[in-house]
Amino acid sequence: MAHSYTVKVYYEDTDAGGVVYYANYLRFMERARTEYLREHGVDVSELHNMGTFLVVTHMDVTYRRPARLGETLHVTSKLLETKAVKATLRQQVLREGELLVDVLLSFACINREGKPLRLPPAFEALAAAEA
Amino acid sequence: MAHSYTVKVYYEDTDAGGVVYYANYLRFMERARTEYLREHGVDVSELHNMGTFLVVTHMDVTYRRPARLGETLHVTSKLLETKAVKATLRQQVLREGELLVDVLLSFACINREGKPLRLPPAFEALAAAEA
Amino acid sequence: MAHSYTVKVYYEDTDAGGVVYYANYLRFMERARTEYLREHGVDVSELHNMGTFLVVTHMDVTYRRPARLGETLHVTSKLLETKAVKATLRQQVLREGELLVDVLLSFACINREGKPLRLPPAFEALAAAEA
Amino acid sequence: MAHSYTVKVYYEDTDAGGVVYYANYLRFMERARTEYLREHGVDVSELHNMGTFLVVTHMDVTYRRPARLGETLHVTSKLLETKAVKATLRQQVLREGELLVDVLLSFACINREGKPLRLPPAFEALAAAEA
Repeated sequence: MAHSYTVKVYYEDTDAGGVVYYANYLRFMERARTEYLREHGVDVSELHNMGTFLVVTHMDVTYRRPARLGETLHVTSKLLETKAVKATLRQQVLREGELLVDVLLSFACINREGKPLRLPPAFEALAAAEA
Repeated sequence: MAHSYTVKVYYEDTDAGGVVYYANYLRFMERARTEYLREHGVDVSELHNMGTFLVVTHMDVTYRRPARLGETLHVTSKLLETKAVKATLRQQVLREGELLVDVLLSFACINREGKPLRLPPAFEALAAAEA
Repeated sequence: MAHSYTVKVYYEDTDAGGVVYYANYLRFMERARTEYLREHGVDVSELHNMGTFLVVTHMDVTYRRPARLGETLHVTSKLLETKAVKATLRQQVLREGELLVDVLLSFACINREGKPLRLPPAFEALAAAEA
Repeated sequence: MAHSYTVKVYYEDTDAGGVVYYANYLRFMERARTEYLREHGVDVSELHNMGTFLVVTHMDVTYRRPARLGETLHVTSKLLETKAVKATLRQQVLREGELLVDVLLSFACINREGKPLRLPPAFEALAAAEA
């Protein structure tokens, strides 16, 4: 079962089209991803304080249906693959089981100077657990 | 006791100064205010769908201390006063009891054309409860 | 020559990592796309007022290098292909000629109920001009 | 004459109410303030790179009328007063001369540890010029 994170849609998330603004789903994704990783031993804030950053290098986003003000959404997160310095995650935004947004996202681990670092060891355990 | 809403600080909320960006506390305030009102019978989304909008007309914001990535914050909300078409709320952002941001905020009720409307009746009960 | 739109990076765009937050490049893309289309006869605000919306259906985003506070960026936009109800655009974020973010983005035209509409006729002229 | 900065309203700035989201005017204010200060010798990015930050400590915001998608707005900025470690600015958002949002904003100068610093000397010249 993929990890699930709940989001409510507020005015801040919407645009004049009456729906969630396309870039704002990525904010939901970050929240969900952060909690998913934290529950598996990767604390993004601790990494940050040590000068280690997880940065998105690529994403493929399909928008299927719009979300609207006041709705409750669920964002699922699941690690698909890890390599030495890169991981790939699938994240989906759902509303009552219906798929709204589907994301395939890769990120790398870097230091303050932007040099690639090995992913924290917890990723290996996570990858094994999700396999 | 004021209503309390919990917020976690993610990268989306911060800026290059390493702290929460000043405008983003207002997003936290909206989330907290929405939940506070909903628990007292004022559903902002339902109002929206009926063409009724609560719009902020004035706010006085004091920033005392910054919040940082990964911190858990509490936003309190308390109705101070209601008039026919206007209400005043106090909202505060706290971190472990320490006051970070202090807001006094007034809003009015309008229709799609921007004409003032009487506040929904639930505000009277809320004002009485908070008095 | 692709259309070019200039963006300056302010604190609002950055995050605690000291760089532009990944979702905020999509805000830059929207600004650039809007001006690009407007200069070619497609006014997103006019469409909006007539109940017609251009909505992003898919995007593929590659993040190559980060942008930082105070930098001046250029966002290029170029229509690649149009079909009856869908168009594909390439957008790139550059800093002094260096590619930072590379986007392939498709959007559809819909009405208020979400039904697909034919793209406005100006897209045909634009597609011909860009071919 | 107050300094004037031009902003166009895009979808990113609006909410489902069809108007600019209340917190987003503060993003416009930051852009305008940054350019105003830069033209008077205070470069926020340079200060940032030296570990010096201008942080908003208080603001009083009156929202008079809403702005909408596609509109062109002007944000005026004018320094009202400077003290050793604090300055007060007035900023207004106008649409064709009509006042939409009126802001009185104070900020302080701090270092990375949050300790107050004297304002950069350029503020004195600016204050004299605006007097």
